[in-house]
Amino acid sequence: MKSLENLSQRLTVQYNGKPCYDIVFSDNFTLLSKELRKFHIQNKKLCIVTETNVAPLYAEEVYRLLRPECKEIIIHQFPAGEINKNLDTVNDIYQTLITHKFDRNDMLLALGGGVTGDITGFAAASYLRGIDFIQIPTTLLSQVDSSIGGKTGVDYKSYKNMVGAFYMPRLVYMNLSTLKTLGDREYLSGMGEIIKHGLIRDQEYFYWLKEKKENILAREYNTLKEMIYVSCNIKKAVVENDPKEQNERALLNFGHTIGHAVEKLKDFRLLHGEAVAIGMIAASYLSYMKGYLSFADYKDIIHMNELFCLPTSTTDISPEEVVETTLNDKKMDSGIIKFILLRNIGSAVIDRTLDRETICKAIETIVKE
Amino acid sequence: MKSLENLSQRLTVQYNGKPCYDIVFSDNFTLLSKELRKFHIQNKKLCIVTETNVAPLYAEEVYRLLRPECKEIIIHQFPAGEINKNLDTVNDIYQTLITHKFDRNDMLLALGGGVTGDITGFAAASYLRGIDFIQIPTTLLSQVDSSIGGKTGVDYKSYKNMVGAFYMPRLVYMNLSTLKTLGDREYLSGMGEIIKHGLIRDQEYFYWLKEKKENILAREYNTLKEMIYVSCNIKKAVVENDPKEQNERALLNFGHTIGHAVEKLKDFRLLHGEAVAIGMIAASYLSYMKGYLSFADYKDIIHMNELFCLPTSTTDISPEEVVETTLNDKKMDSGIIKFILLRNIGSAVIDRTLDRETICKAIETIVKE
Repeated sequence: MKSLENLSQRLTVQYNGKPCYDIVFSDNFTLLSKELRKFHIQNKKLCIVTETNVAPLYAEEVYRLLRPECKEIIIHQFPAGEINKNLDTVNDIYQTLITHKFDRNDMLLALGGGVTGDITGFAAASYLRGIDFIQIPTTLLSQVDSSIGGKTGVDYKSYKNMVGAFYMPRLVYMNLSTLKTLGDREYLSGMGEIIKHGLIRDQEYFYWLKEKKENILAREYNTLKEMIYVSCNIKKAVVENDPKEQNERALLNFGHTIGHAVEKLKDFRLLHGEAVAIGMIAASYLSYMKGYLSFADYKDIIHMNELFCLPTSTTDISPEEVVETTLNDKKMDSGIIKFILLRNIGSAVIDRTLDRETICKAIETIVKE
Repeated sequence: MKSLENLSQRLTVQYNGKPCYDIVFSDNFTLLSKELRKFHIQNKKLCIVTETNVAPLYAEEVYRLLRPECKEIIIHQFPAGEINKNLDTVNDIYQTLITHKFDRNDMLLALGGGVTGDITGFAAASYLRGIDFIQIPTTLLSQVDSSIGGKTGVDYKSYKNMVGAFYMPRLVYMNLSTLKTLGDREYLSGMGEIIKHGLIRDQEYFYWLKEKKENILAREYNTLKEMIYVSCNIKKAVVENDPKEQNERALLNFGHTIGHAVEKLKDFRLLHGEAVAIGMIAASYLSYMKGYLSFADYKDIIHMNELFCLPTSTTDISPEEVVETTLNDKKMDSGIIKFILLRNIGSAVIDRTLDRETICKAIETIVKE
């Protein structure tokens, strides 16, 4: 866990060894004007892309703040929900940009959670072969995870993130006070990815989360700020080393291989962080079977999910279908099943040795009658 | 014009100062196996993407050649024509790749003209956030122009290249003998872009084309090889200096601003190179009005089009609608009309000073009753 004395208001993410974009931490939107002036927005059109849940909360405020700063500003709204993370929603954005004659010099702002960031990023990556975009994540999950690292994309039919691009934002601006308006379930879903950060990279952070449980559940501002900063720093370090997921970045998929299968089979009735939380339990059990984790570690991870009201298993689906869906996942590398396992709490490895039978056993632990 | 002693079988295109991909010149497909082995295709699935005109000519040959070299090979065919350069065609490719479980390690091969390369490149850029692809251009226009430089994309409704990505191929493999099977009109359409290369970068090359007219029209192999090599070298130099068209690469749009408008208004009944040829006449007239070109130069450019049976004007559309469509073109930079003009034959500049009235005058010269 990075020392707290280093806690600043800003992190700079590098890409191919050069500074690429800043992550700015704030408790309001006001500084956004100043940050965006650096991109000469007085000569640009801006399009705020947001969805129907977030728009009534924050779109007007951001719009009014930036309107005097830029040439033109519009709001594009799409219906909330993972089900709308598809190419039709991206086409609607293209249409808005064409109607308002956006050119290569103009800019998109993704205001919302992970779905908004992923869709807006892909629209920005592909409109006129790429225009600038800014991430303004408003959920815990998008602040600590999806807004950083340039993964953009949409689902294709039932396949998650099948179409997309690695495309870096120009800025990630986090107003941590937006977390106050999140529902409990959505807030806690973000804890799934945060626990993952501890598990794969930082044992001390994992136990710190346990220790700070009360403050985190109460959304105490300074604790949140510290937690989000540490998680962003972990994500930053991983994506800087391996921006296009040819190696180490795959460790961030811990819990996602089985998690994605569960998410899909449950028809997205589970939130992403909840499905990942369940997937982490299965992957931890695999790590235990492999002889990496002790049974006590495994129990500790289950306990951690429970502390933050995250599920550790699911019902109404069969282990067989989870196995099938997992093995059909796109993350299979040339036919070999690639899993992320824990060597111990705080350290993850890529594993390509697991057979179907072993995977079945782990999946049986997370699917209840 | 680059000295002929330097004529080799291969050019290496750099990206951000590093070697990125080779352009290989050959008179057959045989060397393709050897070139692709460098990418370890024995562990990869390959998908040949091609269209209904090209497939009967070359798909079988390439398929049979590569089948023993790779893990699996399939052919994806789409209906020929610019009208199919759209997102539906890209979606069909995604579907094929999903059905055959292509993963990030696999590879697409674009076998055909510019439409095939643009579509396949964008599918490769966006499937699983980017997989490798190879260009195998089979038309004159795609060999000298669209296969080099990483511009990929599709049209959106009536807007050309509205959606796409800058995404580099791993290899461009040119079998010049494919030019023999091109219809005359399609072959000559490619001359539009070749004449453009002379006009914007290389006066000597422009006059060489005139001198070699008979050989070029007869498709004499050695002349073609020299011509394609020189044109590829010009394109390479421009895209290396400015891969993402922030500056100099825009010079390659000479003739395209008005050309695109004509192409669209004629409902793509003109081939791309023909529309560009007409656009070059208008842009040359603008360069004459601006005091850059002499009237003799302007006449010389008209004469060059005539030598290669390219149109110098069009009918059935009104000058007013060409003006309107031109001014609505996406290449307008923040509301300012950006034109590429010739300072003289062999040298182009970006101009942002032209007013509507001047543009009207030039358009009137290319639209006949």
